[in-house]
Amino acid sequence: VVSPPDTVHFLSDYGLRDEFVGVVHATLHRIAPHVHVVDLTHGLRAFDVRGAGLLLARVLPHLGPGVILGVVDPGVGGSRRGLCIEVHDQSGPRWLVGPDNGLLMAAADATGPIAQAIELNGVPESARRGTAPADAVGRWSGPVTFDGRDLFAPAAAALCRGTLPDQLGAAADPDTLIRLPPPVAERGVSSDGRPCLRAEVTWVDRFGNVKTSVAVDDELVASLPLGSVVSLASAGSPGSDPVQLRTVRAFAELGQDELGAMADADGHLAIVAAQRSAALLLDLGIGDLVELWW
Amino acid sequence: VVSPPDTVHFLSDYGLRDEFVGVVHATLHRIAPHVHVVDLTHGLRAFDVRGAGLLLARVLPHLGPGVILGVVDPGVGGSRRGLCIEVHDQSGPRWLVGPDNGLLMAAADATGPIAQAIELNGVPESARRGTAPADAVGRWSGPVTFDGRDLFAPAAAALCRGTLPDQLGAAADPDTLIRLPPPVAERGVSSDGRPCLRAEVTWVDRFGNVKTSVAVDDELVASLPLGSVVSLASAGSPGSDPVQLRTVRAFAELGQDELGAMADADGHLAIVAAQRSAALLLDLGIGDLVELWW
Amino acid sequence: VVSPPDTVHFLSDYGLRDEFVGVVHATLHRIAPHVHVVDLTHGLRAFDVRGAGLLLARVLPHLGPGVILGVVDPGVGGSRRGLCIEVHDQSGPRWLVGPDNGLLMAAADATGPIAQAIELNGVPESARRGTAPADAVGRWSGPVTFDGRDLFAPAAAALCRGTLPDQLGAAADPDTLIRLPPPVAERGVSSDGRPCLRAEVTWVDRFGNVKTSVAVDDELVASLPLGSVVSLASAGSPGSDPVQLRTVRAFAELGQDELGAMADADGHLAIVAAQRSAALLLDLGIGDLVELWW
Repeated sequence: VVSPPDTVHFLSDYGLRDEFVGVVHATLHRIAPHVHVVDLTHGLRAFDVRGAGLLLARVLPHLGPGVILGVVDPGVGGSRRGLCIEVHDQSGPRWLVGPDNGLLMAAADATGPIAQAIELNGVPESARRGTAPADAVGRWSGPVTFDGRDLFAPAAAALCRGTLPDQLGAAADPDTLIRLPPPVAERGVSSDGRPCLRAEVTWVDRFGNVKTSVAVDDELVASLPLGSVVSLASAGSPGSDPVQLRTVRAFAELGQDELGAMADADGHLAIVAAQRSAALLLDLGIGDLVELWW
Repeated sequence: VVSPPDTVHFLSDYGLRDEFVGVVHATLHRIAPHVHVVDLTHGLRAFDVRGAGLLLARVLPHLGPGVILGVVDPGVGGSRRGLCIEVHDQSGPRWLVGPDNGLLMAAADATGPIAQAIELNGVPESARRGTAPADAVGRWSGPVTFDGRDLFAPAAAALCRGTLPDQLGAAADPDTLIRLPPPVAERGVSSDGRPCLRAEVTWVDRFGNVKTSVAVDDELVASLPLGSVVSLASAGSPGSDPVQLRTVRAFAELGQDELGAMADADGHLAIVAAQRSAALLLDLGIGDLVELWW
Repeated sequence: VVSPPDTVHFLSDYGLRDEFVGVVHATLHRIAPHVHVVDLTHGLRAFDVRGAGLLLARVLPHLGPGVILGVVDPGVGGSRRGLCIEVHDQSGPRWLVGPDNGLLMAAADATGPIAQAIELNGVPESARRGTAPADAVGRWSGPVTFDGRDLFAPAAAALCRGTLPDQLGAAADPDTLIRLPPPVAERGVSSDGRPCLRAEVTWVDRFGNVKTSVAVDDELVASLPLGSVVSLASAGSPGSDPVQLRTVRAFAELGQDELGAMADADGHLAIVAAQRSAALLLDLGIGDLVELWW
């Protein structure tokens, strides 16, 4: 017998200006007062399901056991399903709770085979304080815009009180769950005919560091000695001059006007500058495609 | 006998850039280490007491038992009183702590009759580490600018340690507490002579959804079938063309260039768009007046 | 015997948009599930080690016992040391954990003599999930960009599990620790020949209040009666007209177009306006030098 989880790791695109995050916390605490909530981030770009999923996948290896509550949910109130997905890694079971729009799946699939997937159509009404009385459906009805508060938090809290996933709804076929395309990371030929790595910008952090989809343990990249020069071009601007990046271990090795390529905290190649924003200098943002060669 | 509260729900206009919220947390934890703090939001507009009060009123039904600590306090250091207000709802007693400027009263009055109101003029000095020694008063004196740290958090923490409200100060007459006017929501005649609902924008969230003061269980609104078209005009621009909103249940029903009217998560009519900011499209902000008709 | 700390006070320049703060929380909770984390702020200006250190020094007297985890770390991955510094005040021992770049030292030196300083070169690998296997060093190696997650949080969590500081690394000579210059606060002569106080802007808060380095218990300032007029000039603009500040106890005493000088919450002179930003009105920012006379 596994004891119920007592931690909820929570990420969303709710931001911190409105009351959304606070109300979800209050709801979790009201239903399961012993729960410890770790806020992973609420600063995700509004509606950016894919970016959220990539962030969750890279964060997950650092989390202790418990529930993951992920809410970036442009389809709220429509026909998309709510999910509880159970996966197992070396630290035991994990439960991922959120919408069936791809947000949870990059992390789930990276962790291990899906033990069970539940469609959240049986979360007890008693936990769902904000939901509509049944007879109101069909007209304005009750709130259907805040499933973070009304469906997902109650489901996460119920798990922490010992409710089993299959008590929260019906089994869903894992093969039917929505998965989003992984970031581009492939060997290719550049627009002017050179062999190159084609990669995607997967994140830009507050310091302006540009995370790419290229893993530094990729055979080609791993063989690059520190101090090499890597050329970078934006795939969207074929005529523009490439810039030079120096491969370094740490920011402090870079001169003031230099750009670097570095292994980031998650084992991917990042494009960086010393105490300046590489993203601003190079006009790069999430989803942009770049070409790298040397 | 009621056991002391162990949860503090905290909202403020402190923002998260400075140390204000952190120091209040540290103070609560220093005085009452067992307390669980739920941050409702600290992103309230600076000095916007009325907006904060409306937010608190709509959030309160989702909170479990405990203390509410609300600080938007342009009058800090002046003659405005500090308050602890006790109200009761079906989940038991609640204590609202903050300045006597109207912030707490929309929520308190919506919850139930006021059991007691205490002016916080007797909070033990021992808890008020930052305050001035008595003999300094009259010149620069000690700090009088951070009652969140020096008065309200110590009072909230004292309640969580079992101090009774009437040990924190003298009774105040509930009728003397400052109340702010509720948002405009009335039947009227539009500037060009049509019968209409006159409503106020009470919030704009990070997604650009525009919350109005119109309750969807208002008789007139409740009778509107989904799929109706509602006309909207800004009361401040009488000559401008009205825009059309389609009444829908969920964002996903709206086309890319369409505006909608929807029941929001708190049972009010919201003006929305699909993955776009209705507030930006319509140039609407908190406090703006609009007219709706159909 | 002192029992291990159970609270970590955490400040950084990580911001709240990325996952950095969340992953540090998750790491602390994974290693030491009983730890209570108080976020002091994560909105520090990127790379502003000195501003962070001044903030920590003014916040520290309000903190209960425990660990302080401070991360503003432009030198991460380079040769700068990681530190655990132990100081004692009337509430018992405190441990400050972070980089050896000056961030921790204003607070440590203000608290009391340094009982011990440890270079964090012996934090157990088992706690450092993200770090590189030893044989990878020299090429890309593992992550060296996120010591908040990989070094400092594990060290803070280890302290909370009863590990002693000297089990985390070797003793460092307190005299070798990096200290930053304190803010300018001196009697001087203004650029046009008047005796004046020369002061530095040490913070601008979200309301636009301008904190200066002048302590209000400075003999000269303490003798200023409330209602006095103080002249202020920016040291950087010698030709410009000085502005007049009225010394007041509280914001509410100021008229709409008036500027004030007030004792702030930490006993320093602040330049303020009523519900407006003095910083915007006077174009003042952190690090600016001003002259005050009367």
